[in-house]
Amino acid sequence: MGNRVVNSSAIQQILEDVYARFRDLREGRPADYIPELAKANPDDFGIVIATTDGRLYEVGDTAKDFTIQSISKPFAFGLALKLLSSDHMLAKVGVEPSGDAFNAISLHPVTGIPRNPMINAGAIATTALIWAHDPERAESILLDFLSDMAGKRKRLSVDEDVFRSERDTGHRNRAIGYLLRNSDVITSSPEQALELYFRQCAVSVSCRDLAVMAATLACQGRNPITNVVGLDAMCNTDVLAVMGSCGMYDYTGQWLYNVGMPAKSGVGGGVMAVVPGRLGIAVYSPPLDTYGNSCRGIAVCEELSKRLELHLFDQPNRAGTVIRSSTSGQKRYSRRWRSKVDFDLLKEHGERIKVLQVQGVLDFAAVEELLAHLEGSTTNETFVVLDLAQVLALPEVSVQLLRDALSNLQKQGICCLACRGEHLKNFWPTEESEAVGWFESLDRALETVENRLLEQLHCTQVGERLPNNSITLLADLGEQTRTRLMPLLERRNYSTNDLLCRKGDAGSELFLVETGLISAGIESSTTSKRIRFATFSSGVCIGEIAFLNNLPRTADLVADEDSTCLVLHRDTFEQLQHEEPEVAIDIILALHRDLARKVDRANQQLSLLEQR
Amino acid sequence: MGNRVVNSSAIQQILEDVYARFRDLREGRPADYIPELAKANPDDFGIVIATTDGRLYEVGDTAKDFTIQSISKPFAFGLALKLLSSDHMLAKVGVEPSGDAFNAISLHPVTGIPRNPMINAGAIATTALIWAHDPERAESILLDFLSDMAGKRKRLSVDEDVFRSERDTGHRNRAIGYLLRNSDVITSSPEQALELYFRQCAVSVSCRDLAVMAATLACQGRNPITNVVGLDAMCNTDVLAVMGSCGMYDYTGQWLYNVGMPAKSGVGGGVMAVVPGRLGIAVYSPPLDTYGNSCRGIAVCEELSKRLELHLFDQPNRAGTVIRSSTSGQKRYSRRWRSKVDFDLLKEHGERIKVLQVQGVLDFAAVEELLAHLEGSTTNETFVVLDLAQVLALPEVSVQLLRDALSNLQKQGICCLACRGEHLKNFWPTEESEAVGWFESLDRALETVENRLLEQLHCTQVGERLPNNSITLLADLGEQTRTRLMPLLERRNYSTNDLLCRKGDAGSELFLVETGLISAGIESSTTSKRIRFATFSSGVCIGEIAFLNNLPRTADLVADEDSTCLVLHRDTFEQLQHEEPEVAIDIILALHRDLARKVDRANQQLSLLEQR
Repeated sequence: MGNRVVNSSAIQQILEDVYARFRDLREGRPADYIPELAKANPDDFGIVIATTDGRLYEVGDTAKDFTIQSISKPFAFGLALKLLSSDHMLAKVGVEPSGDAFNAISLHPVTGIPRNPMINAGAIATTALIWAHDPERAESILLDFLSDMAGKRKRLSVDEDVFRSERDTGHRNRAIGYLLRNSDVITSSPEQALELYFRQCAVSVSCRDLAVMAATLACQGRNPITNVVGLDAMCNTDVLAVMGSCGMYDYTGQWLYNVGMPAKSGVGGGVMAVVPGRLGIAVYSPPLDTYGNSCRGIAVCEELSKRLELHLFDQPNRAGTVIRSSTSGQKRYSRRWRSKVDFDLLKEHGERIKVLQVQGVLDFAAVEELLAHLEGSTTNETFVVLDLAQVLALPEVSVQLLRDALSNLQKQGICCLACRGEHLKNFWPTEESEAVGWFESLDRALETVENRLLEQLHCTQVGERLPNNSITLLADLGEQTRTRLMPLLERRNYSTNDLLCRKGDAGSELFLVETGLISAGIESSTTSKRIRFATFSSGVCIGEIAFLNNLPRTADLVADEDSTCLVLHRDTFEQLQHEEPEVAIDIILALHRDLARKVDRANQQLSLLEQR
Repeated sequence: MGNRVVNSSAIQQILEDVYARFRDLREGRPADYIPELAKANPDDFGIVIATTDGRLYEVGDTAKDFTIQSISKPFAFGLALKLLSSDHMLAKVGVEPSGDAFNAISLHPVTGIPRNPMINAGAIATTALIWAHDPERAESILLDFLSDMAGKRKRLSVDEDVFRSERDTGHRNRAIGYLLRNSDVITSSPEQALELYFRQCAVSVSCRDLAVMAATLACQGRNPITNVVGLDAMCNTDVLAVMGSCGMYDYTGQWLYNVGMPAKSGVGGGVMAVVPGRLGIAVYSPPLDTYGNSCRGIAVCEELSKRLELHLFDQPNRAGTVIRSSTSGQKRYSRRWRSKVDFDLLKEHGERIKVLQVQGVLDFAAVEELLAHLEGSTTNETFVVLDLAQVLALPEVSVQLLRDALSNLQKQGICCLACRGEHLKNFWPTEESEAVGWFESLDRALETVENRLLEQLHCTQVGERLPNNSITLLADLGEQTRTRLMPLLERRNYSTNDLLCRKGDAGSELFLVETGLISAGIESSTTSKRIRFATFSSGVCIGEIAFLNNLPRTADLVADEDSTCLVLHRDTFEQLQHEEPEVAIDIILALHRDLARKVDRANQQLSLLEQR
């Protein structure tokens, strides 16, 4: 078995402290109503904590086998739910605490069905149902199931001595069996079901096994070490619910009060407790109190619950945590390099763009918070980018809720794009559908809302696309230099998907984008997809670094749409450097200023992202 | 009261669906053992959900007043825990479900104390203890407390008609009172305590009030609308525990199974349910089932629990979520600008630096996961930067655990720095103590580990600090240009804290750092603290953008330690441009390359951060 026993000194120290504190607790004594159990060593004592990613912390007698006894009951109940329908089970066994001791008869006065599956009557009824489902294979099915929950490669087995001892002295349980037969909860002779019940109680486990079984219950029924799914999430929740209301005999209320987690104890000395989603805990110590619970087991779990703050009902308020960051388009922008005119427009109107980074498990309360935020902070002028990269999970309830909410926003005229949600399988559309607002990349989503905002502004502000001659670099040159440079530039047309240059080419040309759209990127070596680094609109200059230093291109340049560029050749520029160095210096300085703006912009974004 | 009723259409729609689904449910009938209650309109029906940040969603008769009845019991228990000690309370009232009906006598056969505070016997005992604590003011204390929990500006009041009706017909409760007197749970005449108990049960509330009271219990006792703390977290957990095990009379097991949240019902028709840390839910509908629970109340809560996935025991596995990102120093670096030699060393050995961004609530299981990761992925050669900016809360259990773990790592020779944890008040040291590894800024922490790594590398690799003449810019110039430039440079010494230039100064000088350390920053306008933008080591050039373009400085430059710079004056450089333009062009191009490296570096970091 690949159980990885780790040794994080700080956590190990806590376990050892707790162990030392209760080692000398001398209360209680081992069960004696089954002769074989009375032989247990009262000094045996082990504690194991299993995490939901499969790490174990342990101290004491954690590998020693003992019999599972009543801790088999929740598992048998889970197996019965899995094999039979939940409705069928609930017609045969209740789920109500009885207020009585573990071995009380506790049948419902009217229906005659046992109060719950954690007392003997309910457990015998449960096992009888498993037996009746497949009399031949019932024991094998049960042992396989328990072994799956414990993550054992070698199957768990029955301690034959304890089994015989229980069978030979289990008169009271036999009486219960016949009462169940009498009220038709069991519909054939109870003897064979009782045989299976005695065998089930005599299954040998170690404290380590129990901790992994508890961790499996903490993981919605999936064993965190083997990843085998023993129970589906719904059956698993049902099992935890009966443990929560009835698991510790007539000490369950006190347990829920002091410890606050679903648990089950057995007269073999085991206690198993579950922190759903987080931890499994097991303690082994044979001396029992008058309720039939392990004395050290109760003491250790109370102490661990207090010390590690594990009480399920003690939850900090998680309101206010779903939105990791909310930034406006004045501060957060795409990597698209635009003309100064467009940058200025985005700066001025960027507050209409809202970039929301959402985080955590989007359960109902989290989605509610997100929707309330969206509704409270948007108008029909707002463009919303919803970044889902940090969403850990989107439960089924939230899928429809979020879809409906987004479509409501769209109907209200709020442009709402979602990005980076591919990991949310049940939510994310399977096809690429950028048109309607689902993006793989945040940058693409940002660029899209910027484009839409600019389109609106251009329509309302200037009535049509900006004039194409506002190339920032040219505007930044003095009149004299510009006049000298213009005739040296070649105007060149590109169609969509044309390459301007390839990665590795010599940087022999400088491109000034007059109309259209150019992007820099490379082809992925694994897929044939193009990885885009940046996009350049009309008005900007590209390729200046390789050009000035005569270096190879670091990326392909591709026309994303039909485009026109003004091109300066290296030969022409070198000639200019020699013949009119003051003009060349002016141009280089303008390129340096342009690059300085890029550094500045990148650093601003960096500062913003680092704040998060 | 500032209850903000919002109208998120998607969530409102769910409530309306559920309301419509159960409006025509005609089961049960209003309580009739108290004449006044029998007058209730069986068609009254309201549902309210209150969030833990104080938003309400509601449908139906949510503002209509009715009497709180048994829903007062958990609050009275909470108040008693607050006024008296928990030990005192538990000596007088148990916390174990009785399996009996709400009005059963249910005293413990041995001790004579009531089984739990949710049945009448336990509730009467609880109220008697509150009364005995301060007979004069008991009712006032109780009403104030209930009003605090409900967030009412106008105090909750008693419905005198219902009170009189209950008092005049409460013979069974009077009998219970005298039995409690008989067993000395009540130590004076029970009449006055009973009077208070009848008044407590007759307090008028609306469905909206109950939802806010539930939300307060969901927020560890702090009212999410008024922020008034009604109960401390410990008492609050105790209240939820008795609700969880005994809140729905002898239907509590079935409720925990189907609904999975602590709850309390009253014969007035109210049901209040709590999702700890998340939501409060209230339903009002007078017709009751045989257990004494509102029929529509049960049906609505079952439906909401299923539909909104609110069952407390159905928790997704949260393992694997504590570490938001883990990056090596090869990819993530500080903003300190270094010589090419140092950058290359960091590139080569950067895998020894580990930057861990931690997120979420660091409960025990989360800290365990973090520590296991740290121990499994570090050696004594590793430098760790722990970024705590995204940690939402650090419960008390984790404070010591994390401190111990960090100090263990230090003892093992692993350099471990923490940053951005100022918001974790109980954990973060109050004094600035950068020396021992607590940093306000991630950048400072990164820079510090880089420095320590470089110090180690310099000692082992070259035996001493690098030679100071390896200024990257000079090395990047051709031999001829360098020879021409060197005599034009002025060597200048600065002492620690000397200003090289101020923000706003003309950019008349270019600085090449020969030895020491220079930082760029500004003085904060609010505090006198210096905000640092970047730091520059020996080997690098500073101030080139303002210098080349004759622009004002955008930041102060300050010597962080005794430093030497080589300085190029603008006059000298302008003369060079005119007289030897090919030399000037070479220098400008080298500066352009230097800037291009900065853009490249900033973009790399940007890509890295955007991935998160």
